[in-house]
Amino acid sequence: MKLLKDDIRVFAPATVANVGCGFDVLGFCLGNVGDEVILRRTEGKEIRVTKIQGAEYLPFESDKNVASVAIRAMLDELGVSLGLEVELYKNVKPGSGMGSSASSSAGAVYALNEMLDKPFLNLDLVRFAMKGEEAASQKAHADNVAPAIMGGFTLVRSYNPLDIVSLDFPKDLHAVVVYPQVDVKTSDASKMLRKEIKLQQAITQWANVAGLVSGLSKSDYDLISRSMEDVIVEPIRSILIPYFGEAKEAALSKGALSFNISGSGPSVFSFTDSEETALDVEKAINEVFEQHQVETRSFVSTISPEGARVLE
Amino acid sequence: MKLLKDDIRVFAPATVANVGCGFDVLGFCLGNVGDEVILRRTEGKEIRVTKIQGAEYLPFESDKNVASVAIRAMLDELGVSLGLEVELYKNVKPGSGMGSSASSSAGAVYALNEMLDKPFLNLDLVRFAMKGEEAASQKAHADNVAPAIMGGFTLVRSYNPLDIVSLDFPKDLHAVVVYPQVDVKTSDASKMLRKEIKLQQAITQWANVAGLVSGLSKSDYDLISRSMEDVIVEPIRSILIPYFGEAKEAALSKGALSFNISGSGPSVFSFTDSEETALDVEKAINEVFEQHQVETRSFVSTISPEGARVLE
Repeated sequence: MKLLKDDIRVFAPATVANVGCGFDVLGFCLGNVGDEVILRRTEGKEIRVTKIQGAEYLPFESDKNVASVAIRAMLDELGVSLGLEVELYKNVKPGSGMGSSASSSAGAVYALNEMLDKPFLNLDLVRFAMKGEEAASQKAHADNVAPAIMGGFTLVRSYNPLDIVSLDFPKDLHAVVVYPQVDVKTSDASKMLRKEIKLQQAITQWANVAGLVSGLSKSDYDLISRSMEDVIVEPIRSILIPYFGEAKEAALSKGALSFNISGSGPSVFSFTDSEETALDVEKAINEVFEQHQVETRSFVSTISPEGARVLE
Repeated sequence: MKLLKDDIRVFAPATVANVGCGFDVLGFCLGNVGDEVILRRTEGKEIRVTKIQGAEYLPFESDKNVASVAIRAMLDELGVSLGLEVELYKNVKPGSGMGSSASSSAGAVYALNEMLDKPFLNLDLVRFAMKGEEAASQKAHADNVAPAIMGGFTLVRSYNPLDIVSLDFPKDLHAVVVYPQVDVKTSDASKMLRKEIKLQQAITQWANVAGLVSGLSKSDYDLISRSMEDVIVEPIRSILIPYFGEAKEAALSKGALSFNISGSGPSVFSFTDSEETALDVEKAINEVFEQHQVETRSFVSTISPEGARVLE
C-alpha cells in the first residue's frame, strides 16, 4: 500500500438527511458548512484521536470515536497497519441534526483514502464510514455519510446490497438550515416512531417521494414544494422542536418551498429557489426563535456537488 | 357550448397501473393496445350505451356503465344536456388488470371533450373519468385513467387536491404485458391487503420508488431494474396468479429488467431496454403459461407519450 502523504487536512461537510418525505433514504450535502479532519502519520500501529476541538466531550477512545472506528474498518479491509493521529475540528455540533458524526467519519475515511493511493471507491468509503455511524448510534446508517462523501443529493436505495444513487437536482436550489440550540436526542426521537404505519399513509409518502425525485430532476420547484411533505415521521418528531409550527409559517410566508426537520432535529431546513429568498427565509426563521429566547446558528448554501475534499 | 362534430371515434389505450414499487400511484400508457370508443349525437338528452362489443356482459344502464357515468359527470359540470349514443369496442378485457374500465371512461370523456370545443384540460378529464372508475370499483382511482388520458408515465401525487405528474422516461423502454386468462377479481385482490404495514418495509418501498423515478429520468436501465421491487403488495397478490414465480424466472432469464403484476392482475408485465429483448421475454412468459394449459394474450409496446386520441 503506497502512502502518498504523511499528513492531510480535509473539509468534511455537514449534511441534511431525511429531507421531508424521504425519511431514512434521502440526504444532501451543504457547500460551506462542515468540519475539518486532520490525519497525521505516526510511528507504530495505533490510531489515536488527539484533538476534538468544538466538542471535547466526544469520546477519544479509538474504539468509540466515530472517526477512528471508520478508519479501523478501512485499514482492516486493506489488511494494513498504520499509526495515525486524528484531529477533529467540529463546526457541526453533535446533536444538531446536521450529520455531525457522519461528518467526522466520512471526513476520516475520505482523508485516509487520499493519503493512500485511493484504493477505494466512494461506495466503499460510505461502507467504512457507516461503521462510525454504528459506533455513534447503534445503527449503521448511510443517509448522512453518503452525501458527506459523494456530495450532491443522494438516495440510499438499499443496504443489502449497499446501493447509493446520486440524484439530479437544480443548481439554483438553496437550503436554509437553522439550528435552534435546544437538546433533542436522536435516540429519543427514534423511540417515538411507531413500528407499524397505515398503508394509506405509506402510499401518500411514496407518492410524495416520487414527486420530489421527479421535481428535482426536472428543476420543477413547484413540484418539489408540493412533494416535501412527510406525513409519517414529522408530525411526531416536530413535537420535540419548540416553535416548529411558528417557524414553518414564517419560512413559507417568505417564499420558502418547504420547511422540514433536518435529520432527527432539532435543526430545521427550507428549500428555496434563489439565494435572495434563502436569506429572507433565514432571517424570518431566526426571528421566530429569537423572539422566544432560543439561540440559533443558521446557514444558507446551495447543494454542493462535491462532498469531502482536501484542503491545502 | 359549441359542438364541433356530430360523431367521433377515439382510441382509448390500455394502461399498466401500480408498476412494481409504485403501488397505487404510478401508471403508464401502452401504445398499441386499447379499445375504441364511438360517441354519436342523438336527439333528446339521454346518454345511451348501445353497443359493448367484446364484453357484452358489462352494464348498459347509463348510471352503471363507466363511460356514461364519466360523460354524465362532465356534462353536469358544464351544465349542458346532450343526447349521446356510446359504443364501446372492448379489446382490453374487463378483469385483465390492464385498465379496462379506465380505457372506457377515459376514452369517453376524451371523445366528448374533442366533440365539444375542448372546454376541459386533461386534469379535468381525469377527474370525470375517475367517476367512471368509482362506478366500476367503488373507488375513484386515477392511476389508470391518468395515463389513459395524458399518455406517458404518470404519478398520482395527490388526490386532494388532484395532482398528476408526468414523469420523464426513456424512449426505448419497452413493456411486455401478458394476460393469462384466469379469473382474479380486483376486489378479492384488494381484500387481501393489510391496512397496516411495517415502517421498515414502507421505507424500503419508497427507496425503490425514488430509485425508479430517478432511473426513468436518467434512462438508467440498471437502476430501473434494481428498483422495480414491490415488497408490500406483490408478495401477497402474486399468490393469486398461477405460475407467477416460474414466469418471472423465465422473463428475467431472457433479459427482462423486471417482472411484476399489472394493476391487480392477473396480467403481468416486464420492462425491457429494447424491442428485441421484449419479444424474447414475451415468448418466454407465454411458454410458461402454455406449458400449464393457461391461455394468454400478450402485447409488446413502448410507453406511448400520447394517451387517448381521435381516429379518423
